[in-house]
Amino acid sequence: MGKVAVLGAGSWGTALAIVLADNGHDVHIWTHRKEQAEEINNAHTNERYLEGITIPESIRASGDLSEVVQSADDIILVVPTKAIREVCCQLVEVLDHKVTVTHASKGIEPQTYKRVSEVITEEIPEEWFDDVVVLSGPSHAEEVSLRKPTTVTVSANNIKAAEHVQDLFINRQFRVYTSPDLVGVELGGSLKNIIALGAGISDGLGYGDNAKAALITRGLAEIARLGTSMGANPLTFSGLTGVGDLIVTCTSSHSRNWRAGYKLGQGAKLDEVLEQMGMVVEGVRTTKAAYQLSKDEQIEMPITTGLYKVLFEDADPRDVVDQLMTRVRRHEMEDLTNILDEKMND
Amino acid sequence: MGKVAVLGAGSWGTALAIVLADNGHDVHIWTHRKEQAEEINNAHTNERYLEGITIPESIRASGDLSEVVQSADDIILVVPTKAIREVCCQLVEVLDHKVTVTHASKGIEPQTYKRVSEVITEEIPEEWFDDVVVLSGPSHAEEVSLRKPTTVTVSANNIKAAEHVQDLFINRQFRVYTSPDLVGVELGGSLKNIIALGAGISDGLGYGDNAKAALITRGLAEIARLGTSMGANPLTFSGLTGVGDLIVTCTSSHSRNWRAGYKLGQGAKLDEVLEQMGMVVEGVRTTKAAYQLSKDEQIEMPITTGLYKVLFEDADPRDVVDQLMTRVRRHEMEDLTNILDEKMND
Repeated sequence: MGKVAVLGAGSWGTALAIVLADNGHDVHIWTHRKEQAEEINNAHTNERYLEGITIPESIRASGDLSEVVQSADDIILVVPTKAIREVCCQLVEVLDHKVTVTHASKGIEPQTYKRVSEVITEEIPEEWFDDVVVLSGPSHAEEVSLRKPTTVTVSANNIKAAEHVQDLFINRQFRVYTSPDLVGVELGGSLKNIIALGAGISDGLGYGDNAKAALITRGLAEIARLGTSMGANPLTFSGLTGVGDLIVTCTSSHSRNWRAGYKLGQGAKLDEVLEQMGMVVEGVRTTKAAYQLSKDEQIEMPITTGLYKVLFEDADPRDVVDQLMTRVRRHEMEDLTNILDEKMND
Repeated sequence: MGKVAVLGAGSWGTALAIVLADNGHDVHIWTHRKEQAEEINNAHTNERYLEGITIPESIRASGDLSEVVQSADDIILVVPTKAIREVCCQLVEVLDHKVTVTHASKGIEPQTYKRVSEVITEEIPEEWFDDVVVLSGPSHAEEVSLRKPTTVTVSANNIKAAEHVQDLFINRQFRVYTSPDLVGVELGGSLKNIIALGAGISDGLGYGDNAKAALITRGLAEIARLGTSMGANPLTFSGLTGVGDLIVTCTSSHSRNWRAGYKLGQGAKLDEVLEQMGMVVEGVRTTKAAYQLSKDEQIEMPITTGLYKVLFEDADPRDVVDQLMTRVRRHEMEDLTNILDEKMND
């Protein structure tokens, strides 16, 4: 069993550390909050992020990045997307051996609109890492920490690296599949947060399950369209990291993106919502990125555009959802056919 | 505005009648239960099927098929799948003019494994009907009757017929799209009930949202695989009548298929569940049909097969779900790639 460094001690980082510890790996978590490291080491809990969960005693936490990374073969990056570049820079300062870097962040970098694996590749010199792997899928951290059955996908440009990470994480409850489509796996996990915000808004407005299912279906087509234009395989959006993650995020009150949307639907303003949540809501930044990308790539994204107007231009959520529902379009397959056409013309 | 006959006064038949009446059509409902017809005509309710809903006074109900059908331009068939053939035979006895027949039944005929439009075409002589249209999509009847936003798809071999039915039903809350894929629209609505039963079982076992999302994702690939082999366009399964209907059915306690699965997951036996429900659970019969079809067509359908064993061979739901979760397969795209390969080789 190897030594694994998990960078980030939020809900997902802690849940992944638990999976790795269950598999017998020597797991060190890095967190820059001293009191959190002490809580993990002494009380074996991380109450703010995983309420009521006991963390295996073998897991050690520390605020010293150099100590955590020392002799680790694998680095698992589980920090908010906007912090990825900075953490990579810190990592480069302390690395003294080659590692495999896996990230589990579901976002697009603000301003640059780059995928997380692109940011990692830019910041860590080739001599210090073998491969970048992404881990994504329908996986609430709370359920993973309770050892409830969960499936995720890992992907890398080099399939051997993905298989290595698959071996690291797989166990009876935590099922890990590989995919060759790094771009699609990263984009599915990121873009689905936009639709989760929209689904939350629809629920917050009291529009019901029929409206939400329509929104998710249309949303899936819309993010697949953007993703395909960015190099993803459209089929990936039909898999665990696409429709699977979309379903779990849009239909569960565990999801902070859904919860943020729900409050917006009930009339709260974005600033209030973000303040109340006290956690990162990736979908807000991702909406901004996707809105800009859809303009650059000339991709029609009515849900993303509507959501952008609610989040950043103070549009009324009810007007936006009403407009989406009554759009003039008579044939269902318009969007979907475009995707397949693009694929078939590859 | 035309005269429309709705055959069947269950939740969905009544909800569709309400949409038609809202649009100003002259709507007659046929039900063979005399007291139900009286309740609709006098109290303007249908409490057993749509609790708390007031039905527009313009809607008339009758047990006399000939009276209901008389001078109607459109017939909307909303009876359980197993009753379709018999109702068509009765219809032929009383028809004296040409009609458009629309059905909204989500099932496959037991024994013959035929789609509902096939049964209708077999039973009603060509001289009495112009076209068969299917109406399907993510649409809980309760929400439609409350005028909550809802989207559905209509499809027919003749697109003009689909557009005619679209015009009949469309209004501000009830959005109707057309699709050219009659086979796919019919199969999506039917086969999704299998996965809804499975999702209910997973929930009944307490397995959580991650497991359910995995099951839905795998289930979608599985029903798309069978549907494609039966002539459907695989893309239809990514639309409202595929993933949309699947989501609404698997994630809402309104769904009777999900509810039946939930009780099975909690340890009840099939007979008890069906007796308690007191309504038709199409997914049970559809599982049997799909299981047989998957053997005939040599299509791998692990979820359907597992469910068949639970329903008809007394297998333990926990064992079946555990087996599904721990299947030996390492690459996520196997199933999905097969579908696209088939499509691209068309």
